[in-house]
Order: sequence, then structure tokens, then C-alpha cells
Amino acid sequence: MKKVAVIMGSDSDLPVVTGAIKQLKALDIPYEVRVISAHRTPHEAEQFASKARENGFGAIIAAAGKAAHLAGVIAAYTTLPVIGLPIKSSTMEGLDSLLSIVQMPSGVPVATVAIGGAQNAALLAAQILGVENDTIAEKLSKFKKDMAEKIKAKDKDLQNEIDSI
Amino acid sequence: MKKVAVIMGSDSDLPVVTGAIKQLKALDIPYEVRVISAHRTPHEAEQFASKARENGFGAIIAAAGKAAHLAGVIAAYTTLPVIGLPIKSSTMEGLDSLLSIVQMPSGVPVATVAIGGAQNAALLAAQILGVENDTIAEKLSKFKKDMAEKIKAKDKDLQNEIDSI
Amino acid sequence: MKKVAVIMGSDSDLPVVTGAIKQLKALDIPYEVRVISAHRTPHEAEQFASKARENGFGAIIAAAGKAAHLAGVIAAYTTLPVIGLPIKSSTMEGLDSLLSIVQMPSGVPVATVAIGGAQNAALLAAQILGVENDTIAEKLSKFKKDMAEKIKAKDKDLQNEIDSI
Amino acid sequence: MKKVAVIMGSDSDLPVVTGAIKQLKALDIPYEVRVISAHRTPHEAEQFASKARENGFGAIIAAAGKAAHLAGVIAAYTTLPVIGLPIKSSTMEGLDSLLSIVQMPSGVPVATVAIGGAQNAALLAAQILGVENDTIAEKLSKFKKDMAEKIKAKDKDLQNEIDSI
Amino acid sequence: MKKVAVIMGSDSDLPVVTGAIKQLKALDIPYEVRVISAHRTPHEAEQFASKARENGFGAIIAAAGKAAHLAGVIAAYTTLPVIGLPIKSSTMEGLDSLLSIVQMPSGVPVATVAIGGAQNAALLAAQILGVENDTIAEKLSKFKKDMAEKIKAKDKDLQNEIDSI
Amino acid sequence: MKKVAVIMGSDSDLPVVTGAIKQLKALDIPYEVRVISAHRTPHEAEQFASKARENGFGAIIAAAGKAAHLAGVIAAYTTLPVIGLPIKSSTMEGLDSLLSIVQMPSGVPVATVAIGGAQNAALLAAQILGVENDTIAEKLSKFKKDMAEKIKAKDKDLQNEIDSI
Amino acid sequence: MKKVAVIMGSDSDLPVVTGAIKQLKALDIPYEVRVISAHRTPHEAEQFASKARENGFGAIIAAAGKAAHLAGVIAAYTTLPVIGLPIKSSTMEGLDSLLSIVQMPSGVPVATVAIGGAQNAALLAAQILGVENDTIAEKLSKFKKDMAEKIKAKDKDLQNEIDSI
Amino acid sequence: MKKVAVIMGSDSDLPVVTGAIKQLKALDIPYEVRVISAHRTPHEAEQFASKARENGFGAIIAAAGKAAHLAGVIAAYTTLPVIGLPIKSSTMEGLDSLLSIVQMPSGVPVATVAIGGAQNAALLAAQILGVENDTIAEKLSKFKKDMAEKIKAKDKDLQNEIDSI
Repeated sequence: MKKVAVIMGSDSDLPVVTGAIKQLKALDIPYEVRVISAHRTPHEAEQFASKARENGFGAIIAAAGKAAHLAGVIAAYTTLPVIGLPIKSSTMEGLDSLLSIVQMPSGVPVATVAIGGAQNAALLAAQILGVENDTIAEKLSKFKKDMAEKIKAKDKDLQNEIDSI
Repeated sequence: MKKVAVIMGSDSDLPVVTGAIKQLKALDIPYEVRVISAHRTPHEAEQFASKARENGFGAIIAAAGKAAHLAGVIAAYTTLPVIGLPIKSSTMEGLDSLLSIVQMPSGVPVATVAIGGAQNAALLAAQILGVENDTIAEKLSKFKKDMAEKIKAKDKDLQNEIDSI
Repeated sequence: MKKVAVIMGSDSDLPVVTGAIKQLKALDIPYEVRVISAHRTPHEAEQFASKARENGFGAIIAAAGKAAHLAGVIAAYTTLPVIGLPIKSSTMEGLDSLLSIVQMPSGVPVATVAIGGAQNAALLAAQILGVENDTIAEKLSKFKKDMAEKIKAKDKDLQNEIDSI
Repeated sequence: MKKVAVIMGSDSDLPVVTGAIKQLKALDIPYEVRVISAHRTPHEAEQFASKARENGFGAIIAAAGKAAHLAGVIAAYTTLPVIGLPIKSSTMEGLDSLLSIVQMPSGVPVATVAIGGAQNAALLAAQILGVENDTIAEKLSKFKKDMAEKIKAKDKDLQNEIDSI
Repeated sequence: MKKVAVIMGSDSDLPVVTGAIKQLKALDIPYEVRVISAHRTPHEAEQFASKARENGFGAIIAAAGKAAHLAGVIAAYTTLPVIGLPIKSSTMEGLDSLLSIVQMPSGVPVATVAIGGAQNAALLAAQILGVENDTIAEKLSKFKKDMAEKIKAKDKDLQNEIDSI
Repeated sequence: MKKVAVIMGSDSDLPVVTGAIKQLKALDIPYEVRVISAHRTPHEAEQFASKARENGFGAIIAAAGKAAHLAGVIAAYTTLPVIGLPIKSSTMEGLDSLLSIVQMPSGVPVATVAIGGAQNAALLAAQILGVENDTIAEKLSKFKKDMAEKIKAKDKDLQNEIDSI
Repeated sequence: MKKVAVIMGSDSDLPVVTGAIKQLKALDIPYEVRVISAHRTPHEAEQFASKARENGFGAIIAAAGKAAHLAGVIAAYTTLPVIGLPIKSSTMEGLDSLLSIVQMPSGVPVATVAIGGAQNAALLAAQILGVENDTIAEKLSKFKKDMAEKIKAKDKDLQNEIDSI
Repeated sequence: MKKVAVIMGSDSDLPVVTGAIKQLKALDIPYEVRVISAHRTPHEAEQFASKARENGFGAIIAAAGKAAHLAGVIAAYTTLPVIGLPIKSSTMEGLDSLLSIVQMPSGVPVATVAIGGAQNAALLAAQILGVENDTIAEKLSKFKKDMAEKIKAKDKDLQNEIDSI
């Protein structure tokens, strides 16, 4: 099975990125986690991205904040789908991270998820692998059903809570 | 080969969406184009999305503007990767479309590209199909090389133009 | 008397939504509260909305955050007035929720209130029911007068406090 | 039948507001159109709003731009539902109008529609009147169906156009 | 001497507004403080503003948050200079308050100060009264010099602190 | 009578600033117009501002765009009220100009009007001079009444136009 | 003398970038102009930046739009000062370009100028070279004086124009 | 060796600015730290900037928040490179500071770094001095390598942590 790479620009992003790792684990999708910075270790970024396909990866999640160039730099060196995960920093509510990732010029797309949307980054990676992998596709179907059941259960629970408002 | 669906919320989005269609054509990727509105033809959205996988689609591009719910609504009914293409409307510089598409809650990702980034939506769809399809992957590699050659040619041409500034 | 539906996209919205429930209670307007997600339980959203009129509802309050599609999805399936209540999430100061709800395309309006404006969502629902219901209209008049009296009382109280500044 | 008031803060708003008037006409809903400014003719605003209910109105559409106070000022003097229609001016892409209208403090709601969303303002007024009026409700159902049919027709037409892209 | 009115839309604005009151006190400028809401006690707003000039006021500070209409509504009923003080609320970082106050349409200006700029609102009121009042003008000159001295003193103090960094 | 200074940072601002000049003329308020740049002719800015009071000015209108420092720099050198007029430039919709002018730190206020609000800048200057000048105050009252009459006339005219929509 | 590099991410940026080239010419500062894309020709970006110092450059101007990574990518490979010039694209008023360039993480600065501020990018490069080069410093002093003279001349000219307003 | 000036508009900016001072110390670059306010001590700003070059400075870091005019005012009086450091204040997420600093009009550039980017301001100053100073250039190269090594070390450390997620 193809692996998913989870790259973060700084180890300070780990608390958010953990949400992606847990979701990949839960779906039994193999992954590797790396700290690679577009600005501080650009050679590592280039090397990782250039060989990602031959190294067995099927999708790359790149998490970064502020002027978040990591996803774009990775995408410059590979034709694998790159999932951009914007991290909210101490200013600008994550808008800087979001725009730096999503507004890629023509020719080099980055599949961007919500600011801090780590779980969705993992689910999107799974969906990508699941296009041709029925096992993953079924797990995603089950995830969708479970999620619906949880909402329905909360809907029921709420009916009791409401009376006490 | 899996097909790509290109859905737009309104036929007025066609001038932008055409950029995606042309790119899919250029890569010989089969596609279907639809006008389906999350708000005006919600049943069609549900039916299309629910059966997209069994109908041979591998990725769905959903283009919409303003309170752009189309990609999210499609994503609610399928486990295929859904690519959100924000369309700039007459107000708000496309920020409303972008945020309505990218800020999806946990559990239901949408792979968002730049505002008006139709070509990138198509390339991302191709990248997704290309994870397991070597023909597409090679075409994408060639696209990347051609793109680089064009920039290099422009870099050379520029040297002549500069003197006249 | 027509009922008001209060729907939230996630039970985590309850602390905010409670403000609407309390106001409806205070006005003796019958209501039902539901957790229904546009993305996680879309079938429930469709079913609820499609039958809301025949089930005795006169207005629907839909609260959601981030890419907040709930109000728009509900509005797609009913001709009842749908009141959108944007919930502020952990990023973007609620701007994403607001734009996702208010910027609806032509044909499918959502009556949007302020970010976190739960009490106003309830008052708007009451105003809608009060168009043809004199009892509600009188209660709203009384609410308006009481509110004015409170401000006037605070204005008086302030005169004493000021001296200690 | 209750009437709908359509108020604009300046006659320069008429080109946008016309969209609301046409939609009310199309639905055979009686209306009156006024130019009343919250800042330039505040007494008229007060008088109109204070007597709107007894004068047979069921909903008030208030259109204004920039620091758009009209809807809020009207809402201060009536318990009828007030629909705020933000007009985009020459700066700020309409964000100033939107926030000035939608972010009303607790106690005085304004039902806000999209920036420039004149047709939706009229449809929302119709939905409000349609809560207790079956004729209007049926017209709105028909409007919804017609709208869906138009989208479906465009979806069909598109299949032909696509080939020429 | 002309008085300054300090009006706030809600007594919850008092912690911010206190900064204005203290500054007026420090400059020995007579003032009155009121809680008057554009939306909840609009008649009081009208009455206060209509008679402000004959009641001996020379400037009016109006503090409000969110869709902050207070300053504009006051300005509609008087030809005295009205100083708008935007209050930051729980969402939107005060941008809603700022735009609702500053973006006034032609004909009815509001002199807007920074979000939360209570001290500056008072200083601006003093500057206005000081145009024709030499005592106030001299106090403002002294304030300006004292302020400069404080900065210079801090500049000196800093030289010692720096060594410990 | 005190004069009003109208300063612009660049002569390219004249088309907007003209609105202020015309309004001052219409009110028979004496004025001087200058091109002074905070960044390009800072000495002139300092000299003008330092002597503005003794040179007979009662208020200073400062118009500038982008990182609009003119009003703040003028305010640093005088205790006269300084009215900031933000000019929209080719980017950012005037938000940069607005924030650069309005968000002044404590101690040095700038009375900010709307982006491009030249007429209001002049009216605010007139209101400031009118605090102690009954002639101006009466002219402003008349202006207010005329403005109201115009709106009422447009309201009447509209009743005829409406039929043709 | 050290040279200045002027790099643009796309030849479509040339109309804006020309402003920088002209200013460098006017100051007799040697320069080279290149089209190098962070995403399309990343190897060229790396090679250019890695050898810029040894190739005689003293400063690098990098112009790009949207998710503008060029300046940051260049800065990753050199310790020369990199000047980021944000280009406004068809959406978002240049805010995306600005934030993508200026919000660089700690360790890798980019000296950012205004959106479309090409002339300033060149002047900043000249200022950097002028720190140790008296000829350039004197030319910049002269530029500053000429600029002041032009403003003063316009100030004089204006006095005549004003009468005709 | 040329010195670096570190100027802050208020001593309350010191906690942020400290990051710049520490970095300059670590690189053995001589510096002076000052509290000078564009609005409160404008004469000091003028005097400092006018003589900065002859006093041995090679670059000036100017830190300020809100309507942050300090960097622009300094730049008006010198041809040395001025580095603008935007400080986030209690509102607007630092956007006001950023735009007030970066959006400088043509002719007077400010080299702007990220909101709160104090370390980068120092590094940029070092890069500027390092254009002609090999010692500094080598220290910056070493800084760059150390930074890369730290990221690589964290990348290794992460491999162990990951297992425990």
C-alpha cells in the first residue's frame, strides 16, 4: 500500500499535526512523519519531494504556518498530490498561512484543507489512496456512517439536556 | 480509466471552469461536466455524489461562488476526493467563496485550490488519478518539464526586452 | 401556534445556541432543538427541512461554524424562513461562518444574524411568527419596552458610579 | 394581505434594489418603496417604522451601504421583521455595509441577506408572509421548482456546449 | 465652558470608556456621562442629540461596539462634532465597530478614533473645545510636553535595562 | 474667523480632496490648500503644523493614501484638531489608508472620516469651528435641513419611477 | 560595484517590475533581470540564490503574486538581503501576495515593500548598497532632495489651480 | 563596524523587541537601543534619523504598533535602510501595524518584516551589513547551517516521539 508523508515545517506544529497522524493510524494507513522546513532545510525538502513517488508515497501532507511555503515547495518537486495544512500562528488568525498555501499559481496545485484541519488532511489523503483501494474506500464509508451515528446519538441525547436549559 | 467530474453551481461559472476542462482534455483524462446547484437542485447533487464512485469517477471538481456550499454538499455524500474551486463573485474578492469551501469541519474534507484556480483543479484531479496510473503520472512529469522550459525560454527572451526599458 | 426549530451542526455549538432557546422559552414560543449536520447527517437535514412546514414549524434557526453550510442546505429544501446563526470557531473570528451563511446566491435566502447572535436569532423567529400572531407581537413590544427600561435604569445607576472614577 | 416595505437609504441604491421590487411584483406581493435615510431623514425613519405594523406592513426591507444604519434604526422602532440588504459602495467590497447591518447587538435583530442580494431580500420577505399565507407559500414552492428546472435545463444545454471547448 | 457628553451604547462599555472620563477630568473639562442605546432607547438618543447644543455641550463622544450605530444616530440629530469610539466586542477584532462608525455617508460625519481609543476620544474633544479656548489649548500643550518628557525618560531608563538583556 | 487647512500628501489626491474644498467654499469658510508629504517634505509638515494655530487655523484636514502618515505626523506637532481623510489607492480597497490614519496610539488623536469622505471632512471641520461660531452653526443647520428636503423630494420622485420597474 | 538582481516569478509581472528596473538605471546601479519561478523552475531558483553572493550581487529583488514563495525560497539559499515585492493578482487585492512574502518565519527574513512598490524595491536595494558606498548614498540624498523639490513645486502650482475649483 | 539602531515607539514594545537585541548580540553586531515616538517625540525622531549615517549607523530597526508611523518617519529623514517591525496590539491582529509600515508610498521604502518578527529584523540588519562585511557574512552562513542542523535534529527526535502518539 502507498504511504502517506506527514511533513511539518517546525516541530512546534506537532500538537496540531498529531490529529492527522491519529486519523491515519485509525485507518491503518502507513505513514512517515518528518520535520522539514522550506526555508531552513530546503535541500531536504527538495530531496524528499523529488523521491517521494519512487519511495512509495501516494500523498504528502505538508503543515506550516505564517508565510507557509512548505506545501508549495514540496509540490514544485513532485507530481504526487500535496495536501496543504495551514497552521494558525500567533497573529492573523491563520489567514496568512491559508493564503500562502491555497493561492498557488497555475501549474502547481496544493490541495488545501481548513486552518488547523489536521484530521481532514489525513482523511483527504485516505480518500486519494482510496480511489483505487477498496479496503480504504470501505473504511472511509464506515467512518462516514459512524460519524453520522454519533451525530444522531448526540441529537437524541440533546433532547434530555434541553429540558434543563 | 477513472473519470473526473467537473460540476459547477451555475452556468455563469463556465468561463472560469473552462480552464479545468481544457487541462483535462490536454491530459487525455475522461471527464463529465455538469451544472448542479447545492441550493437549487440539491437532489441532483445528492444523487450525483452518492453514485459517483460506482459510476466510474475518481475525483470530483466542484466550482462555486459566494456562500459556496457545492463542494461541501458533494463531499457529504461521497468518499471520493472532492476538489473545491472557489469562484470570485461581484463582491468580497472571492474571500467568501474561499472560506465557504476550505473551512470544512472535521470529518468531511474538501481539497481546495486557489480562487479561480481552474487549471490547478484539473491538475490536482490528474495527480490524484496519477497516484496509481503511470500514464497520467508521466504526462504530469512532462507537463512539469514543459512548464519549466517555458519559464526558461521567457527568461532568455527577457534579456532582450530589458534593454528597451 | 407554529413552532420554531433550533438546529445546530454540532453539539459543541450548544453553549451559544442556549441563548436562543432561553429567549424562545421566555416568549412562550414552542420549539424543538436538533443536532443535524449538513455534512455528517445530510439525509437528516434533507428530511427535516422537506417536512418542516407540514410538521408545524414556522421558522428554522440553523447554527453552524467554519464553512457553515447548514442554513443554506436547510433553505434548499424548504420555503420556510431559515435564520442563519454564525458560530465563531477557533480561527478567523467567525468571519468564515458569517460569509458562508450570509452570502447565499440568488433564489435561496438565509436570514443571517450576528456572529454568536443567538438571542437575536430567537427574537427574529418570534418577529416572523408575530407578523400574524398578536400575542407574540405584544410580547415583543413588551420585551422592547423592558429593554428600554433596563437601559434607562443603567443610565441612572451610572450617574452614581461615575463619581468614583 | 400584508404589504412589504422596500426602503433605501439613497436613491442611488435603486439599481440594486430594483431586483427586490421585481421579485415582489412577480410574486404578486403588495409593496411600497421609499427613500428614507437613517442619517438625513431620521424623523421619517422613526415615523415610518413606528407605524409600519398598523399601516399594514408585514416585513420591511432596508437597503443601505457603507456605515449602513438604516436597517438597525428601523428595527429600533418596530417589532416587525426587518430585512437588511447591504449595498456595495465604492470601497471595501461591501464588507462595511455587511458588518454594519448584520452585527446587531442583542435585542434588536436584523435579518441580513448577501451583499447586493436584492432578489433574496424579496424572497425572504415572501417566505415570512408565506408562513401563514398558503397562496404565497405555494408560489414560493413553484418558484423553487422553476428554479430547479432552469438549472436542469442549463445542465442539459451544457452537454452540447462542452464539445466546443 | 462647553461640556463634553460621553455616551455609551451599553454599560458594559464602561471599562473602556473610563479612559475618556479620566482624561477629561485630568484636563478639568466638564462632562456628562450617559448610557443611551441607538437601538434600545432610540427616543433618548434623539432627544439628547437634538438638544445637546442648547444644553451646553460642545462635543459628543459616542462609544459602541459591533454594528455600532450610536455615533451615526447622534450625528443625525445635531450639528455638533460627534466623536465615534469603536469598542471591540467578542468577535471580529473591532473591525465591525470601526467600519460601522467611520464609513458614514456624505453629509453626516463622525470623527472616529482608534478601536478602544478612549483617551484619544477625550483629547480630541478637548482639542475641539480648545480651538477657541486658550486655557484648554495650553493644557493640551502641557499634556503634549509631559508626554514627550515621559518618552524621553523611558528612553533614558532603557539604556540601563538593555545591558541585562 | 478661523481658517481650515486642507493638506494632501500628493497632488494625485486632488480629485478626491476637491470634494472638501467645494464644501468649505459653499459654507463660506476660509481655507488654504497645500501639498505636503509626511515622507517627502517632512520639514514642511513640521513647520506647517507647528505654526498652524498661530497662523489662524482652527482645524486641519489631512488627506493621504496607503501607509498614510500625514495626519498623524501633523497631529504630532499641533494641538489643533486634525481630521484624517483616507484615500483609496490601487490596492487594498483603502483599508491600509484607513487603519494607518485611525489607529493612532494614545495621546495623539486623529479625527478620521470615511475612505474618500472628503465632503464629510469639510463638514466636520465646519462643525468644529461651529461649536463657538453661531453663523457656521446656522449654516450647518440649514445644510442639514436642505439635505433632508432633498431626500424627501427624491422619495416623492421615486413613487413615479417605481411604476415603470 | 555590487549588482542588484531583479527576479520575477512570471514574465506577466514585468509591467510592474519595470518600475524597479528604471529606478536602478536612473541611479546607475548595475543589475540583472531574470524570470525564475519558485514553483516551476525551483532548481534555477536554488542555483541562482546559492551563487548570488559569489556572482557579485549585493541585493536581490524578488517579485511574485498570489502564494508568492519566490522571495522566501531565494532567501532560503542565500545570506544576502532579499527584497520581496508583492504583485497584486486578479483576486484578494494583493493581500495574499503580501502575507505570503512578509510573514516569514524566524531565521529567514525577507525585506518586504508595498504591494506593487517596484520603485521602492529598487530604492531599498540602493540604500543597502549605499551603506558602504558613498556615491550611491549621495545619489540617494539627491533623489530625496529632488523629490522634495517636486512636491514643493506642486504645492506652488496647486495654489493657482485651487481658484478654479 | 557600522552599528544597528533599534528604535521602539513605546517601551511597552520591549518584550517583542528583545528578540532583535538578543540576535544582534549573538552576532556581535554593535547596536544602540532607543525609545523614540513618531507622534510623541517627533523632534527626537527627526534628529536621530537625520544624523544616523554620520553617527555610524548602517541600518535602523523601527518597531511600532497600531498606526505605526515610526519606520516611515525615520525613513523620511535618512537614506539608510530602515527595517520596519510591526507590533501586534490589542486589536486587529497586527494587520493595522503591518499595513501602516509596509504600504509606504513611492520614494521612501521601509524594509518590512513579519508581525512580531524581531529576530528577523535583526538578521536582516545583519544581512545588510554583511553585504560588504565578510565576518558578518560568515556568521550568517554559520547561523543558517546551525539552524538547518537544529531542524534535522528535531526531525530525528520526532521519529521517537511519533510512536507514542
